[in-house]
Amino acid sequence: MADSRFFTIAGPFTLAQLAELSGAALADPASGSLRLADVASLENAGAQQISFLDNRKYIAAFQASRAGACIVHPDLADRAPAGMALLLSKDPYRTYAKVAQAFYPRPAFQAGIHASAVIDPTARLGEGCRVEANVVIGAGVEIGARCHIAPNVVIGDGVVIGDDCLIGANSTLQCALIGARVMLYPGVRIGQDGFGFAMGPQGHLKVPQLGRVVIGNDVEVGANTTIDRGAGPDTVIGDGCMIDNLVQIGHNVQLGRGCVVVAQVGISGSTQFGDFVAAGGQAGFAGHLKVGTGARITAQAGVTRDIGAGETVGGTPAVPRIEWLRQAALLSKMVRNKG
Amino acid sequence: MADSRFFTIAGPFTLAQLAELSGAALADPASGSLRLADVASLENAGAQQISFLDNRKYIAAFQASRAGACIVHPDLADRAPAGMALLLSKDPYRTYAKVAQAFYPRPAFQAGIHASAVIDPTARLGEGCRVEANVVIGAGVEIGARCHIAPNVVIGDGVVIGDDCLIGANSTLQCALIGARVMLYPGVRIGQDGFGFAMGPQGHLKVPQLGRVVIGNDVEVGANTTIDRGAGPDTVIGDGCMIDNLVQIGHNVQLGRGCVVVAQVGISGSTQFGDFVAAGGQAGFAGHLKVGTGARITAQAGVTRDIGAGETVGGTPAVPRIEWLRQAALLSKMVRNKG
Amino acid sequence: MADSRFFTIAGPFTLAQLAELSGAALADPASGSLRLADVASLENAGAQQISFLDNRKYIAAFQASRAGACIVHPDLADRAPAGMALLLSKDPYRTYAKVAQAFYPRPAFQAGIHASAVIDPTARLGEGCRVEANVVIGAGVEIGARCHIAPNVVIGDGVVIGDDCLIGANSTLQCALIGARVMLYPGVRIGQDGFGFAMGPQGHLKVPQLGRVVIGNDVEVGANTTIDRGAGPDTVIGDGCMIDNLVQIGHNVQLGRGCVVVAQVGISGSTQFGDFVAAGGQAGFAGHLKVGTGARITAQAGVTRDIGAGETVGGTPAVPRIEWLRQAALLSKMVRNKG
Repeated sequence: MADSRFFTIAGPFTLAQLAELSGAALADPASGSLRLADVASLENAGAQQISFLDNRKYIAAFQASRAGACIVHPDLADRAPAGMALLLSKDPYRTYAKVAQAFYPRPAFQAGIHASAVIDPTARLGEGCRVEANVVIGAGVEIGARCHIAPNVVIGDGVVIGDDCLIGANSTLQCALIGARVMLYPGVRIGQDGFGFAMGPQGHLKVPQLGRVVIGNDVEVGANTTIDRGAGPDTVIGDGCMIDNLVQIGHNVQLGRGCVVVAQVGISGSTQFGDFVAAGGQAGFAGHLKVGTGARITAQAGVTRDIGAGETVGGTPAVPRIEWLRQAALLSKMVRNKG
Repeated sequence: MADSRFFTIAGPFTLAQLAELSGAALADPASGSLRLADVASLENAGAQQISFLDNRKYIAAFQASRAGACIVHPDLADRAPAGMALLLSKDPYRTYAKVAQAFYPRPAFQAGIHASAVIDPTARLGEGCRVEANVVIGAGVEIGARCHIAPNVVIGDGVVIGDDCLIGANSTLQCALIGARVMLYPGVRIGQDGFGFAMGPQGHLKVPQLGRVVIGNDVEVGANTTIDRGAGPDTVIGDGCMIDNLVQIGHNVQLGRGCVVVAQVGISGSTQFGDFVAAGGQAGFAGHLKVGTGARITAQAGVTRDIGAGETVGGTPAVPRIEWLRQAALLSKMVRNKG
Repeated sequence: MADSRFFTIAGPFTLAQLAELSGAALADPASGSLRLADVASLENAGAQQISFLDNRKYIAAFQASRAGACIVHPDLADRAPAGMALLLSKDPYRTYAKVAQAFYPRPAFQAGIHASAVIDPTARLGEGCRVEANVVIGAGVEIGARCHIAPNVVIGDGVVIGDDCLIGANSTLQCALIGARVMLYPGVRIGQDGFGFAMGPQGHLKVPQLGRVVIGNDVEVGANTTIDRGAGPDTVIGDGCMIDNLVQIGHNVQLGRGCVVVAQVGISGSTQFGDFVAAGGQAGFAGHLKVGTGARITAQAGVTRDIGAGETVGGTPAVPRIEWLRQAALLSKMVRNKG
């Protein structure tokens, strides 16, 4: 069970309740009345806990598990140990996400504005917001309903934030329009000047950065990630994007819907992603590129050309992933043959 | 036009005024009285806007542009559409920077110290400073005139900052001497201990870090960038350096004048750059190296040896860029021939 | 001598005192009464300063040094210039660390809680703590004795911190248990949600992150580094680990004792390090790997498989370092032969 100093558990739930809220099916209707008190891993779960099997690698753990119930793909149901109740789902991990959200809902918070918060009189906050200590909110800011602004956040003049957002501690926003249900983790930097200047031996001359950062709905931005505002056009993050920690997103970058950007990725100015692009950790993108919908970029890849929809690439400069792996294998073999 | 919630526009200006302030030439003296209200891209500009052409790739957009005026290289002036007024410049992007700065000057700020700022009585601030909410300024700190210290900044004991600096929100300075006209973006960390310790199986033993960070004039440091103080010598950033977001600069590193360091670069301890070195995004430098004046380091390169003045290198370990590209091409060909 | 605006020097010490506190031996007992006022480099030291020689590369500097005393390996003692007093040590850098710590001890601080700190009434602080301006401490937090909490730190509900810790300015902790003598540098982010969600074309679904971050004793965490909490298991950092700036540590990662993780390294979820693993700057680790005790990972390497104890690897995908260097040499030669 999760440490009660940090997490508050809901429930218990019957398996029928969990089936309903997650859209999964009871393998045996008779098991619907089984009461479950928590989620747990296959190894740690007991009779009152529900677990899940998402990856065939863990079938042995599944077979040995003492979990009272388990979420499993229908094709694997017959591998369950005797006495284990089953929730059937074609996407067990997604079903587990819903079940775990039921047991550990996002903590309710008490609305209110801490006395130490410094809020410009022209700022407007929706109902039910919680604004914690030392938050600074500038002129003309608009914040939707039920937002939670953690301590020491700084929100610059004119920023707009939708409903139900979480703005993590010590983060900083300026020149930004943020959608609904957006979660910014601590230390995020949004909307500062992009890296734009006219270089020259007599000194580099700053070019005013006149765009904004526009973030859609249901976006998460990881801790200490930086998203610069546009130089003229906007920097745009599409609905449902998941951005990890320490990512750099340059001015004018546009991400489509549902992109997944793993930690420490860097995306240079004006590069555009289609929808559902997945970029592995530490990958880098040169500027002014187009990366097609559904493209997958291997961790640490260095992308220097446009990438087609659905392509999977790796290496620096990035090539089709299969080619990159063959290059590595060939080089390895050549060196060993000489050894 | 830039979003008026975030940007305040100056002007209008006549083309003659823009020519004068930028040092560019009117192609036709009769156009000097043309009044311009804003800057815009070639695609978006109308009769009241001025745009620029910096890259031959965009000649078609230039020819199709409805901009009232455009900044262009004299060699391309004859490609302008009929009726477009021209400002001639051998460095159109630099001229554009000056024009855009005229329309969007750095916002004036009201001097004053917020009531919530915590300032040691021995600290000295120059005239015209703005110190925002929750700023903490330590003993003996000296801050020049007209500095803008954004909210939640922490400035440690003894730090010195020159005139006309901007210290971004939630940033942290200690053991540092900062020049004039320096801009630190939000979340910058300056002057913490370098990564210095005596390793050993009985535990690693911290070596006191006794140097400072010394930053010259006209330097920009990007969001969430970290610059450690020296171990004994100082860490030095030369005049006019432009440092992007999430860059790591280790103890004792020295950058010459006008270096450009793109996002997520890492420079290990005691490495020295000459003047005007350009390091591409995510490049890494081993420690104790010398990188000559004007050297160019390709993005993601891993530099493990000294680099001569004017050299351009790429790859890991870094080799001359042309050689690196040939390696990639050769490998690609070998793999395809086998396929 | 270190800048007195930032550092306070102790001493002077006799060479005999320094020998005793560092465990090194006087080469000549008669030199024990020599009084030394400071540490300095071989080049800068004068008669009142003590320096050290740790690397044979600097023997010429040692021979030319005017240092009053020097810490040196016994094998090199006969290379010392005439008149230089010697402290003999088989690990001169470690001995230097102790001597430098004697001259520059961690600054004493005055206990007390700043009036602007916002501390939940249920939080408990040990004796002798210093809590600076604008610190926010949540419900049920437990902080040991003699901790120094720098300005603008945010400590979430339930966090536990051991004795003698330093929590750097503007850092953020939640869902974390921290040992004794831990130093977090400014801007550190500990315990935020890991990057866990069920991907899907209908939108990515967040999976509650129910673990903690557990940090041992004597750990240092560099500026702007991010350590996510576990998804179910904990994220664990072993005793004595040294973690540099801008490092990313994903959910469920476990580091053994004494690991050294250089700047900008990224470690993906559920990867486990044994003891004393050393990871060079910008190296990346895929998830669910095991890296054996004493393994060494070259800077920028991309580790995609388990690494055995004591192995040294480089390149992406990482191979034994010697093989990686041979690959680079072979490629270089092939390209030149064709040139």
